[in-house]
Amino acid sequence: MIQKPRGTRDFFPDELEARRSIEKTMRETVSRWGYREVATPEFENLELFTLRSGEGIIEEMYAFQDKGGRDIALRPELTAPVLRMYVNEAKVLNKPVRWYYFGDCFRYERPQKGRYRQFWQFGIELVGADSAMADAEVMAVGYDLLKATGVSFELRVGDLAMMRSLLDDLEPELQKQVRGCLDKRDYEALEGMGLKSDLAGSLTALIESKTLDDAFAITGAIPEEERIRETFAILDAHEVPYIQNFGIARGLDYYTGCVFEAFAENLGAENQIMGGGAYRLAHLFGGEDTPSCGFAIGFDRVMVSRGESEMQRPQTVAVVATPEGRIFGIRVAAAFRQAGVRTITDLMGKSLSAQLSQAAKHADFVAVIGGREAEAGMVTLRDLASGEQQTLSIEEAVAGVVGSGTR
Amino acid sequence: MIQKPRGTRDFFPDELEARRSIEKTMRETVSRWGYREVATPEFENLELFTLRSGEGIIEEMYAFQDKGGRDIALRPELTAPVLRMYVNEAKVLNKPVRWYYFGDCFRYERPQKGRYRQFWQFGIELVGADSAMADAEVMAVGYDLLKATGVSFELRVGDLAMMRSLLDDLEPELQKQVRGCLDKRDYEALEGMGLKSDLAGSLTALIESKTLDDAFAITGAIPEEERIRETFAILDAHEVPYIQNFGIARGLDYYTGCVFEAFAENLGAENQIMGGGAYRLAHLFGGEDTPSCGFAIGFDRVMVSRGESEMQRPQTVAVVATPEGRIFGIRVAAAFRQAGVRTITDLMGKSLSAQLSQAAKHADFVAVIGGREAEAGMVTLRDLASGEQQTLSIEEAVAGVVGSGTR
Repeated sequence: MIQKPRGTRDFFPDELEARRSIEKTMRETVSRWGYREVATPEFENLELFTLRSGEGIIEEMYAFQDKGGRDIALRPELTAPVLRMYVNEAKVLNKPVRWYYFGDCFRYERPQKGRYRQFWQFGIELVGADSAMADAEVMAVGYDLLKATGVSFELRVGDLAMMRSLLDDLEPELQKQVRGCLDKRDYEALEGMGLKSDLAGSLTALIESKTLDDAFAITGAIPEEERIRETFAILDAHEVPYIQNFGIARGLDYYTGCVFEAFAENLGAENQIMGGGAYRLAHLFGGEDTPSCGFAIGFDRVMVSRGESEMQRPQTVAVVATPEGRIFGIRVAAAFRQAGVRTITDLMGKSLSAQLSQAAKHADFVAVIGGREAEAGMVTLRDLASGEQQTLSIEEAVAGVVGSGTR
Repeated sequence: MIQKPRGTRDFFPDELEARRSIEKTMRETVSRWGYREVATPEFENLELFTLRSGEGIIEEMYAFQDKGGRDIALRPELTAPVLRMYVNEAKVLNKPVRWYYFGDCFRYERPQKGRYRQFWQFGIELVGADSAMADAEVMAVGYDLLKATGVSFELRVGDLAMMRSLLDDLEPELQKQVRGCLDKRDYEALEGMGLKSDLAGSLTALIESKTLDDAFAITGAIPEEERIRETFAILDAHEVPYIQNFGIARGLDYYTGCVFEAFAENLGAENQIMGGGAYRLAHLFGGEDTPSCGFAIGFDRVMVSRGESEMQRPQTVAVVATPEGRIFGIRVAAAFRQAGVRTITDLMGKSLSAQLSQAAKHADFVAVIGGREAEAGMVTLRDLASGEQQTLSIEEAVAGVVGSGTR
């Protein structure tokens, strides 16, 4: 039996409906903030991703040559493609650009629980605005989105300028090693690096600081202070609950200012469900140097965090017909569908009783049509919840079902 | 400047919104017939597609080896993946299975006008039902779907049993050549094949026949006659307008009975927008031999056929604030969004007049907030259509916008 490729998934209707429902909620949420959807190709020229993330990423991608010998890769993330798209059309776009995307991405890695080779991300990119208002808006949208999905999570907000100010005086090589440790939160390795004890102490104190005043007391005055204080104040005005965390050191080489992460409260080790911050990519792709801020939400993890939730089945009518009623039954089914009602007919030539027991499993109403009904142009409508049954005209039957509301 | 890969597209918000809107219409339409969505991986084991379509398809696919040395391919179509998915879980599925899909597919070919390397298909597969009711339902769903998209099209319906009955007596090699000509509608080459004149005449007459009686007069009695007559009668009961065409010879080796195609009336040579029929694939993939019927609609061609259509912009409020009003403005914006209204705030620190002229381009209402408003907790709401302006509480302003309906 042919199987799906290793590390990939099929989605059956129940699961997919739950996903589509959350997707819809997320689309509606970002739309209220004025973000509009864009879409890029499933694959890109390989260079796009190495420019953003370095050559190391090739190992983690589905990278291959097409028949024309061009190096291409299935997209591992969507920020680079969306910024490439921005750069290609930047001249005619109104700034700032508020875009969102929802799409699948690919990584080549050992499949493990909850990590698939094809996965989905929902994200926004705000391109062309450089302000505390902009940074705070992006974080507020992220918070709003996650809240709308119904997951329980914690939002952590920081700014790389704080950490950078402490590391500024280190030699480049040591600075790189320290950054690596911070990025991985490997504080043990950090201790073994022989940093001057006041620096090590400052780093720890900064990571653990709970207020802006405490944090700036450690770093001293830095040029970014006003901007950082303003961003946090606007975030408060947005009424976004967050935890200050200047220990976030993800992408110290990539992000340029604010950084933030969200963690689901009911997932295990793999509990990060959102990551984002301010960055600059456009100039790397041949455009003008452009301030940008955005985030990506791991859609699959959001769905896992939500857990199984009962989906409401749309109201369903089963048209159950004898051989003599079958042709008239097609007209009856069409009338229900016309009114927007999900309507199913037998296609297997089953007996009336077999059709009825099948209908009991997936329908709310049964429209029974035998020779007598077909001749009279009537329908015997049975409400499966109440057991009530009436013989009605098509119009009356449709009105009866539509008027009954959703079950 | 880095470009998108050759033959692919980026979708900007206006175009994507139009696509999403038609996608939604199509989802709602199939849902009323009881079809539910499934999704399969973007790539599959190469073998899946060669089993369905022969080795020749490798040339037209994005086929490559993954890092584990497995031959995989970006899916060129979705019937094989969906049937593979069916086979994998057939034991626990209620038959018949009514599934639909909407997804992107890939082909490696010279890019040309209107043909892209990544393209979208919307289709259904009805698996496990073998009846005239089943065949007619699939065709009726296809008709209903295309009608719902608003395109003008012609539906052509045939059955391969008719053509097969005429070709049955030919030697296998000649039969294959004749099938090839018919498939390509190359009637000139057919004439040069030296078929007996009565066979050539019969083929032509069958292709041109306008009624079932005419067609069966040519083929004589064939075992499939009752089924074919029944299918056409049920299609009439569905009130589906179609043109009988027993010249459809697409996939003579693949389809097993009914075949149908739809053509858009306003497209040029590349005007086929739907193709489908009855087939059997499950046994090829390691499952039981299972009757199936389905179709695929070329979503991109549907969009081209529809042409540009004005999308309705959701009602939009621009919150325009002075530096003193900015923080209160965030609260006002949140209140509008809470009520479901798309609300945009300035992120660039623009002057009040610059914000106002920006708002005039993309908003229906402006909520002006200066220091005076912020202090009083009020909003000056201006209706950009009428020019009317009032100073209101937040609740009044939200009610005023929501109550004004969609522009």
